[in-house]
Amino acid sequence: MLDTFKKNIDKFAEVSNDEFEEIQKFFEIKNVAKKGNLLEEGQIPRHHYFVLSGLLRKFYINEKGIEQTTEFAIETWWMTDNIAYERKIASEFYIQAVEKSKILCITQEGQEKLVKAFPVMERYFRFVYQRAYAAAQMRIKYLYSLSKEDFYYQSIERYPEFAQRIPQYLLASYLGFTPEYLSEIRKKRIS
Amino acid sequence: MLDTFKKNIDKFAEVSNDEFEEIQKFFEIKNVAKKGNLLEEGQIPRHHYFVLSGLLRKFYINEKGIEQTTEFAIETWWMTDNIAYERKIASEFYIQAVEKSKILCITQEGQEKLVKAFPVMERYFRFVYQRAYAAAQMRIKYLYSLSKEDFYYQSIERYPEFAQRIPQYLLASYLGFTPEYLSEIRKKRIS
Repeated sequence: MLDTFKKNIDKFAEVSNDEFEEIQKFFEIKNVAKKGNLLEEGQIPRHHYFVLSGLLRKFYINEKGIEQTTEFAIETWWMTDNIAYERKIASEFYIQAVEKSKILCITQEGQEKLVKAFPVMERYFRFVYQRAYAAAQMRIKYLYSLSKEDFYYQSIERYPEFAQRIPQYLLASYLGFTPEYLSEIRKKRIS
Repeated sequence: MLDTFKKNIDKFAEVSNDEFEEIQKFFEIKNVAKKGNLLEEGQIPRHHYFVLSGLLRKFYINEKGIEQTTEFAIETWWMTDNIAYERKIASEFYIQAVEKSKILCITQEGQEKLVKAFPVMERYFRFVYQRAYAAAQMRIKYLYSLSKEDFYYQSIERYPEFAQRIPQYLLASYLGFTPEYLSEIRKKRIS
């Protein structure tokens, strides 16, 4: 199972098997049931999560009391409330398992000790954040430029496995649709 | 002038003056006139930019032919089209100096050589991307949750010097307003 993590590191940085033996000691493995919460609004996020298997989502409760999903994370993706995690402040978000998931957890102190002990992991995390930042920038462009309908089409075309795997009502929440509106668009697309 | 860069590195990583002498050789200094373009749509972004003084903005031309500003960068901020820069593909963006600016430029190859020669710079860039990613995540939350009007108030409250410095028509473009609508909101706020 930890192979998933080793392979992900290997994409960006060179870590020997012996080093990896030591690196994995900085992490805990956690099993999360479907709909289990890893983080809740008002909590200080203690961990940065790496998805070994399963699917997480991040959401907040908006002023209408509705869950607004802002992000998903599948295998090999990292997730936390980054600002609150770094500043050790209360989060405005929930992180929840959409499917039964297996997660690697590291604390902020643990992550800092890890990169000090294994500077090669600075390189790994530099790539992790660089990619995540680039993806967030594209996301912002789409939020400006695409209609909700086009954003939906773009999402299912670019990430077909992803769109199939995510329950429709969550995909609707991520896109800022009502589930009814999403179902209408889908019908239109098929017809 | 390069002190600005040294101080920014010092916030995140430890670099001696001798090391900094070597590090700065990886960069070129560029003076950009007001409204000068550092990147244009269709070009492959050759550089990552660090603002020593001045102000840059990133925008794209939308389907209505209007410039949509998506980001600003002031002193000590980095800017490029990150996806296109990393993948060496044509950009969909322009990067333009809003004020006369002094910029540090590094190529992608240069940046890779720099972090190989000075692994401590991996740590620096890890922090740069980590902060940028966290800010982009908050931005995405605001794009979901705030009305354009509230986003405007939030922006000028959180970054007052920033909002004062940016010409009103560009602030309007960033917020997705017409300049007329922005001027109306401002009147309402004062009255």
